[in-house]
Amino acid sequence: MPAPPEFLSFVDTNANAFIKRLADAVAIPSISGDATHRADVVKMAEWLNAHLKAVGVATQLVDLGKHTMDGEELHLPPAILGRIGDDKGKKTVLVYGHFDVQPASKSDGWNTDPFTLTIDESTGQLIGRGSSDDKGPVLGWLNVLQYHHQQGKELPVNLRCCFEGMEESGSEGLDELVQRESKPGGWFDGVDCVCISDNYWLNTRTPVLTYGLRGLTYLKVTVHGPGRDLHSGVFGRTVHEPMTDLIAIMSKLVDSQGRILIPGVDEMVQAADEEEKSIYASLDYTHQDIESAAGGQVALTTDKVDLLMGRMRYPSLSLHGIEGAFSGVGAKTVIPAKVSGKFSIRLVPPQTPENVDPLVISYIESEFAKLNSKNTLTIENLHGGKPWVTDHTHWNFEAAKRATKAVYGQDPDLTREGGSIPVTLTFAESLGVNVLLLPMGRGDDGAQ
Amino acid sequence: MPAPPEFLSFVDTNANAFIKRLADAVAIPSISGDATHRADVVKMAEWLNAHLKAVGVATQLVDLGKHTMDGEELHLPPAILGRIGDDKGKKTVLVYGHFDVQPASKSDGWNTDPFTLTIDESTGQLIGRGSSDDKGPVLGWLNVLQYHHQQGKELPVNLRCCFEGMEESGSEGLDELVQRESKPGGWFDGVDCVCISDNYWLNTRTPVLTYGLRGLTYLKVTVHGPGRDLHSGVFGRTVHEPMTDLIAIMSKLVDSQGRILIPGVDEMVQAADEEEKSIYASLDYTHQDIESAAGGQVALTTDKVDLLMGRMRYPSLSLHGIEGAFSGVGAKTVIPAKVSGKFSIRLVPPQTPENVDPLVISYIESEFAKLNSKNTLTIENLHGGKPWVTDHTHWNFEAAKRATKAVYGQDPDLTREGGSIPVTLTFAESLGVNVLLLPMGRGDDGAQ
Repeated sequence: MPAPPEFLSFVDTNANAFIKRLADAVAIPSISGDATHRADVVKMAEWLNAHLKAVGVATQLVDLGKHTMDGEELHLPPAILGRIGDDKGKKTVLVYGHFDVQPASKSDGWNTDPFTLTIDESTGQLIGRGSSDDKGPVLGWLNVLQYHHQQGKELPVNLRCCFEGMEESGSEGLDELVQRESKPGGWFDGVDCVCISDNYWLNTRTPVLTYGLRGLTYLKVTVHGPGRDLHSGVFGRTVHEPMTDLIAIMSKLVDSQGRILIPGVDEMVQAADEEEKSIYASLDYTHQDIESAAGGQVALTTDKVDLLMGRMRYPSLSLHGIEGAFSGVGAKTVIPAKVSGKFSIRLVPPQTPENVDPLVISYIESEFAKLNSKNTLTIENLHGGKPWVTDHTHWNFEAAKRATKAVYGQDPDLTREGGSIPVTLTFAESLGVNVLLLPMGRGDDGAQ
Repeated sequence: MPAPPEFLSFVDTNANAFIKRLADAVAIPSISGDATHRADVVKMAEWLNAHLKAVGVATQLVDLGKHTMDGEELHLPPAILGRIGDDKGKKTVLVYGHFDVQPASKSDGWNTDPFTLTIDESTGQLIGRGSSDDKGPVLGWLNVLQYHHQQGKELPVNLRCCFEGMEESGSEGLDELVQRESKPGGWFDGVDCVCISDNYWLNTRTPVLTYGLRGLTYLKVTVHGPGRDLHSGVFGRTVHEPMTDLIAIMSKLVDSQGRILIPGVDEMVQAADEEEKSIYASLDYTHQDIESAAGGQVALTTDKVDLLMGRMRYPSLSLHGIEGAFSGVGAKTVIPAKVSGKFSIRLVPPQTPENVDPLVISYIESEFAKLNSKNTLTIENLHGGKPWVTDHTHWNFEAAKRATKAVYGQDPDLTREGGSIPVTLTFAESLGVNVLLLPMGRGDDGAQ
């Protein structure tokens, strides 16, 4: 069944207003990982709450309490719970999304201001931080609800919403909320399935439904040495330099081919058999897709199956950067006193932060001991989440397959995704129902 | 001969005014390596020029033309030339200093605002960026000239001044100026010796005269990969990550004991014989001095001679930081698209940037080739200067020894210094006269 013509016409008529609303959302720099932007995350919650109420959603802002980030105690941004309908004859669908974003600045390589939604004239793409991850998809739901509200159409399901503002920083506070509201009498009581739109198509051609996610463990390794930054002329070759030790440690974690060098981490994952490889072989994908999305000819291999398995069913380790070292332009001859390397490992079953972190920590400690340095080492886990895989033959997925065919005229590819949305697992475990990932973003959206 | 009592009394009477003047100078953030602060370097030149004129120095601001920094064309800050006296019966002394500073921010580990001169009540130290390197020493000269000017005392020498605003960024434009003005009829024609105050005592007890400096070569290694920053969930283990390659390269340059791993670099320097070692053994120094100055028990060795030779007569390699990677607080799961590692090597005779850089570049290129990465590598030299050693029995040094004894009541230690002041060599070579380094800063000044 194709999508109703009156719905499609409503979308076309309101396209500019929808884009304007997305621009308003992108303009709020709701960066959850930066304490100086915490007020913007709260502002974004209030903005979204007002828009949900305007289309008939009964909402409540939930105070999630406080947390500590980089030594500072902060109030968490509120979560938004919403509901429409309580018809026993309908299925009840819980929709999840997040309204916080990653940091972004032009120095990271953006060609336009990240917080000004810009339309690329040649491709028609809407460019701005959060336009795809995850303000755009959240506003996609808002647009659908606006249609039903304005046209007086009843929704075919009972709807529950859960939108949070800490997804990019470990979804702090949300697990407790979901567990609490999943109990009898809670906001999520009676939910039959969950739908999350916070990932991407494999390419720009074929829609996707996703039945697996990698988990994550994010670590910060700090080397402390002198009491203050030093002049390399005065102190070079007289003291143990923290940067030398940290770089040595970071170089031991992953090689240039993406292999994880921490003993036991890659080895935890069973190799794929021929039957599993044939699933990846059937997907609409080539190495040109990943190179086009990455904007450079840097794929680890041209073998499609190896590339897809690297993304979907093997762990990966990325070095993100260093806090405390010289990071500006120009030539500063400093010996930094204290430097922190940041890296994360994407996890797949049976890996969890709980079984991987001890391997990482003991390996780093033993590698550091080999350096014979008088500097000191500390390792912190900044956040993490387990991987997740579900049944893609469930009626929740079947409904999504029909809806995808109705809107795009194509059957979706079924994929596992490389990114992590730890709350997926929380919903699956707390509610005991099927969770569907229904991406609205394309493979070249450039999400981080 | 002790210093004249009337001079000492003038210093005591004017101490607060001298400190206030230093605070005014520190408050101007004249960071030569940061294009956004270029106007402050010019402002600092004008401030110093006005103060020199006020104490009777005939000056001129010299336009040094333009240069390119990080792809941007900028006007160089002017140099200041000054002169007092032209008596054929006196020696003519050229004084050099610089009024630009290194970058500084509280995030680098400063306990106080770097651009607000703060007095540490317990130690009496004046804390602020440039207070020791090199605004303090330049203002030391200004204070001496103010005494002679206000008291109507004639200087015992003819004086020439040369103050620049690009020392922390390779002294761009100054070599040409010095060469031009050293010719017959030039501003420096007739100069008999040079005195530079831009280094430090070995400790806090014994004054120092310095007869050698290490040189410097500062390099930037850039790894380019994808066209934009990527999400590590979506792209982890599918592309060659520039950070992985850069960290691998940086880990191959120096070990945790300070040994340079680039073949041929340490090997260029002759080992010290017993006679040379005895010179270092005679200096007033222990490993506690370096640990006290560094603010941590991180000395590479407790052997005083090895420590002093590490600082004075061996090369050193320091890793300063990375441009383009995630450097903020918090946990960003980014794969940076383009990252640049910054490091420098302090050079000693017979090393020069010209004979060391080719070894570094060919080594890095061969190490990068071993990685089998599809990313690309570029290496730039950001700036450099040759090392320098001079005759410490020259009359210029003998006069400085007597002056030191007169002011401090102690004979100075004779040292070589770990830092580089490339212009020292330019003066020595252009003028063909003896150059003396007369440090005013103590070993615990924390200069960078």
